[in-house]
Amino acid sequence: MLKNIPKIISPELMKVLLEMGHGDEILLADGNYPCHSVGVKVVRLDGHGIPEILKAILKYFPLDTFVEENVLLMDNNLSTKPEIWKSYEEILYDSKEDFRVKVLERFKFYERAKNVFAIVATSESALYANIILKKGVVKT
Amino acid sequence: MLKNIPKIISPELMKVLLEMGHGDEILLADGNYPCHSVGVKVVRLDGHGIPEILKAILKYFPLDTFVEENVLLMDNNLSTKPEIWKSYEEILYDSKEDFRVKVLERFKFYERAKNVFAIVATSESALYANIILKKGVVKT
Amino acid sequence: MLKNIPKIISPELMKVLLEMGHGDEILLADGNYPCHSVGVKVVRLDGHGIPEILKAILKYFPLDTFVEENVLLMDNNLSTKPEIWKSYEEILYDSKEDFRVKVLERFKFYERAKNVFAIVATSESALYANIILKKGVVKT
Amino acid sequence: MLKNIPKIISPELMKVLLEMGHGDEILLADGNYPCHSVGVKVVRLDGHGIPEILKAILKYFPLDTFVEENVLLMDNNLSTKPEIWKSYEEILYDSKEDFRVKVLERFKFYERAKNVFAIVATSESALYANIILKKGVVKT
Amino acid sequence: MLKNIPKIISPELMKVLLEMGHGDEILLADGNYPCHSVGVKVVRLDGHGIPEILKAILKYFPLDTFVEENVLLMDNNLSTKPEIWKSYEEILYDSKEDFRVKVLERFKFYERAKNVFAIVATSESALYANIILKKGVVKT
Amino acid sequence: MLKNIPKIISPELMKVLLEMGHGDEILLADGNYPCHSVGVKVVRLDGHGIPEILKAILKYFPLDTFVEENVLLMDNNLSTKPEIWKSYEEILYDSKEDFRVKVLERFKFYERAKNVFAIVATSESALYANIILKKGVVKT
Amino acid sequence: MLKNIPKIISPELMKVLLEMGHGDEILLADGNYPCHSVGVKVVRLDGHGIPEILKAILKYFPLDTFVEENVLLMDNNLSTKPEIWKSYEEILYDSKEDFRVKVLERFKFYERAKNVFAIVATSESALYANIILKKGVVKT
Amino acid sequence: MLKNIPKIISPELMKVLLEMGHGDEILLADGNYPCHSVGVKVVRLDGHGIPEILKAILKYFPLDTFVEENVLLMDNNLSTKPEIWKSYEEILYDSKEDFRVKVLERFKFYERAKNVFAIVATSESALYANIILKKGVVKT
Amino acid sequence: MLKNIPKIISPELMKVLLEMGHGDEILLADGNYPCHSVGVKVVRLDGHGIPEILKAILKYFPLDTFVEENVLLMDNNLSTKPEIWKSYEEILYDSKEDFRVKVLERFKFYERAKNVFAIVATSESALYANIILKKGVVKT
Amino acid sequence: MLKNIPKIISPELMKVLLEMGHGDEILLADGNYPCHSVGVKVVRLDGHGIPEILKAILKYFPLDTFVEENVLLMDNNLSTKPEIWKSYEEILYDSKEDFRVKVLERFKFYERAKNVFAIVATSESALYANIILKKGVVKT
Repeated sequence: MLKNIPKIISPELMKVLLEMGHGDEILLADGNYPCHSVGVKVVRLDGHGIPEILKAILKYFPLDTFVEENVLLMDNNLSTKPEIWKSYEEILYDSKEDFRVKVLERFKFYERAKNVFAIVATSESALYANIILKKGVVKT
Repeated sequence: MLKNIPKIISPELMKVLLEMGHGDEILLADGNYPCHSVGVKVVRLDGHGIPEILKAILKYFPLDTFVEENVLLMDNNLSTKPEIWKSYEEILYDSKEDFRVKVLERFKFYERAKNVFAIVATSESALYANIILKKGVVKT
Repeated sequence: MLKNIPKIISPELMKVLLEMGHGDEILLADGNYPCHSVGVKVVRLDGHGIPEILKAILKYFPLDTFVEENVLLMDNNLSTKPEIWKSYEEILYDSKEDFRVKVLERFKFYERAKNVFAIVATSESALYANIILKKGVVKT
Repeated sequence: MLKNIPKIISPELMKVLLEMGHGDEILLADGNYPCHSVGVKVVRLDGHGIPEILKAILKYFPLDTFVEENVLLMDNNLSTKPEIWKSYEEILYDSKEDFRVKVLERFKFYERAKNVFAIVATSESALYANIILKKGVVKT
Repeated sequence: MLKNIPKIISPELMKVLLEMGHGDEILLADGNYPCHSVGVKVVRLDGHGIPEILKAILKYFPLDTFVEENVLLMDNNLSTKPEIWKSYEEILYDSKEDFRVKVLERFKFYERAKNVFAIVATSESALYANIILKKGVVKT
Repeated sequence: MLKNIPKIISPELMKVLLEMGHGDEILLADGNYPCHSVGVKVVRLDGHGIPEILKAILKYFPLDTFVEENVLLMDNNLSTKPEIWKSYEEILYDSKEDFRVKVLERFKFYERAKNVFAIVATSESALYANIILKKGVVKT
Repeated sequence: MLKNIPKIISPELMKVLLEMGHGDEILLADGNYPCHSVGVKVVRLDGHGIPEILKAILKYFPLDTFVEENVLLMDNNLSTKPEIWKSYEEILYDSKEDFRVKVLERFKFYERAKNVFAIVATSESALYANIILKKGVVKT
Repeated sequence: MLKNIPKIISPELMKVLLEMGHGDEILLADGNYPCHSVGVKVVRLDGHGIPEILKAILKYFPLDTFVEENVLLMDNNLSTKPEIWKSYEEILYDSKEDFRVKVLERFKFYERAKNVFAIVATSESALYANIILKKGVVKT
Repeated sequence: MLKNIPKIISPELMKVLLEMGHGDEILLADGNYPCHSVGVKVVRLDGHGIPEILKAILKYFPLDTFVEENVLLMDNNLSTKPEIWKSYEEILYDSKEDFRVKVLERFKFYERAKNVFAIVATSESALYANIILKKGVVKT
Repeated sequence: MLKNIPKIISPELMKVLLEMGHGDEILLADGNYPCHSVGVKVVRLDGHGIPEILKAILKYFPLDTFVEENVLLMDNNLSTKPEIWKSYEEILYDSKEDFRVKVLERFKFYERAKNVFAIVATSESALYANIILKKGVVKT
């Protein structure tokens, strides 16, 4: 643990976030996501939901403003969208980042996820809660 | 995730618990414990408190009844003992295990911890919350 | 060993089962299956038949109900099907999972097996006893 | 699997047995033995009892006749000795090896076990079933 | 060394043979074969000829009777075939396995060898002595 | 790079700082320090002086207030102390941590450094600029 | 540190430079470059700008004069080119190497970077500061 | 060092030469060759020229007489060929091997070199000094 | 294989012999020697007797003439010494090395063997056939 | 290879020299020195004598002036000292370093060598040519 850093960010997760560059993507995956068969680095955060992790990450993580979308969600193909998306929207809004959401059809989301920099394996139990973030430029 | 297994138990933690044998000890360490300099295996569960982990572990973990003490706590050297010890006692009681607590002076606790099988690194913020469990025999 | 966990589930097997996600598949292979040349992770359980392993795994492993088949068998191309399939059916029935069996022609089965998450190498001596399970969603 | 080799002998176990030399010892440990904290190589054979493994190993493993004892058991300190020892005696007798049993006090057994070549981790549930074998010379 | 196991079978070779399954192939390569550039596992048995190794392996290794050929030789393209093939034939005959030999043109043999499970690197000095064995089912 | 984290803190350094616990020590070593022969983890930050690193670290790193000294310096054995110590004092003062400096004789410093958690290898060219920090408790 | 070698050149960077041969390329990447997802070796020099590293490297690094361009820059697609390019030009001029600059469109630059020998990850904050150097022949 | 083995042949080089088989090729590369980006094993012999290494290797290394060329050189595309080729010719002649030289155009040589068994990285400073040897059959 | 090098010397054994220096010792161990529990590097040459290996090694291996004994044998404590020692003596004599034999009591031999550079694990079946060689200086 | 760096300094040797700090020692060992049994890092430079390496190293390597001796030689115990020491003296003199030689009795030299940072394994054939250098402070 360190001063001023949320406890939920493990040493390994922080290292991964620092190593990511402009355009790299990270997937926050729900508890049922087949994380280990994707073939990319997996950081496990068992026992946690996604919103608390999303909030902690966005304290440090700039979203990419060079592209049309920097937040990707997996579609449930229903008229009623997953409840958890609302909390995502609030967290994104509070982060003051310029977020641009796109909803991807389920299998297109799986395709996209094959090229992420890393996957955070959570225990989120809400359905269709998976979310990909695209990293932007850190201004100094 | 699996059916009937608490989500907080990571794949790595479950593997460690299964590999432990009679007499092996595990330390659930608070967020400030110097886990990585002890020289034993560390399983990180960042972002969690100890009580929820203790409860999940005791669903599977028998305490050692061949010895006088099977639960070790770190003394705060005050007349008022840490609040969190009460919740430990309730969880131990609910587990139906035959628990036998011993309070160790701080540096004796550190000494003892050098020989544990593994350390679970939590983010528990309560002071003097460290707890060692000694594994007993699984009856069949 | 742990309380409430069948002894046949090795620490490594439990870790693999916990790491699998929705849609990942596991192959329980008979003693003659060329497990090590498939190119995926192999968990050895020498000396055991498949039924006892299948029974233990289904205590924790939900089958995938998003797809038309979640249990795959290798066809013997005879009118009389392997005796062992009956015990599989009973175990699947007892598990209360919504199982949906599909029989694959031998070489299609080999093809399918190339993409499983892991293979459990058993010493099952019955012919055409290989079985693939597709993991479903853990409901909470 | 191979012709003429018992199915319970895993590839890794056979390799270990072949690498052992005159005077090296192997521990067949029950399901509660703290195998992984001894600090030597562990070969897991989860789900099996010790007698079936002992029988298979003695098909290949000569006992050391240069010393006074080549089979070591852990004492239960009772007048009635563990039931399982009888099956050990039968298996040893059937092996035609010149076996010489010594019963060690529990902590002396633990001491002795620290220097074995390897430990076979079984799921044997009988108490005081641990057994150490000392390898002899292969005559040709 | 172990009782009843030929001394020429190294611990590593025995482990490889035990891990092979139905349909896997092993190449016994002569001393000039480019074993290490094939890209598969190599087990070295320097200083030995192939016949003594072949004889030892066939004590344990069943040949595949599901296919038309289970023994492959490299053609010398001459009317007089290599002398060493006769000793192979005798050893195969003595093994009581149902062997079915096919002679492959040199470059087809190289192609085939790219997919073997393992190569045994010998010091056999006879020309065109390379031989591939296809593993069959162990009956129990 | 991330928002709000000084660029000089490398991913590896941040991971190390997060893994350190109460009482663990870190050495910021000058360019001539024999870092790699100490036998502990070395994080290289070539090309940098110590003050800029010290300042960045103290943004996150609490000093230990359970002990009499939490900042250790290497003595030059002269009446005039190294100029760089003044900048250290300013940085420590600005950090608002409760710092307690102790000056160690050169060889005692080397002794102490043998047990640090990690060494940051800098290119600091000032003499006697080595500094050890002892980590305290993160309050939440 | 060594005599006559700039302090900013880390041991690992020097090793990489020495191992590079004629035609190999190295990328000096700014702080936002996605270095770790390229798939090549990354040497981190956190906290430094590119000009000071470029200057140090060119003390040892010959540019390739067998090709039309040996220095590659990433275009900002504006009429005003990045300020930092001027300092690059001065440093290249001072190096006395025969430098030949080519400006690549952003995505072509990314393509080119996929085949470099190594990437130096800096904390350079200027935009479009990335630069690739192609190594020439060392004359003796 | 050993009796009767030239001092310039390092332990690693000898091991590589012994592991090579019929048809495998080795590249003796000059000091500017991009050895480490080829993707094959590199044996470094810094500080040496190629002729002395060639001479030592040919004491043990038979050339392949099954093919039309067993020695490959990189063309300088000039009427005057590199001086060093003469010393190669003398060394090849003295080796009593049946050598058959072919000169390859520069980029064809690079192509060919991608499939060699290993590269010996020398410090040869002569231009166009690179040489590939194809290993033949050891007669006994 | 290479020209002029005995086929029994494996690539790994040759590397070990080349890496040994003045005063380093090598043990040629019989088939029952507990090679893998000594804790030093083991080179396996299964299937071979010691004399043929000894003969091949002495072609390259100088014995140490700075000490009183450079060949060590394990005593059988009988008046009749092992038959195989005679063949050792002949091989040593033929090597033209200045050999000086010392016979060590069995447990002193084991002690001595703990510090050898490497052990060659043979399948020699003669009793008390173990032999240690001490390497001397290579004269040039 | 790089501009201005002697070709004899391999990438690995340069990395080692850069990682060494004040007080660390390096041994340049002759061709018969038992380098690999010392237990420290070995950098091989087969085929070279020590003088050429010493000369190259001293271009970068400062000697320690805080101690009474910074160059250590192994005594031949004769009135006539090894010829090669004269060339060492000239090279040391030419380096302009403040060198202070001490001659150590053979076994004391071996003792001292056990704690060096690294050993450079040369093929120097002169007797008693071993030399240890103690690194000093790089002034800037």
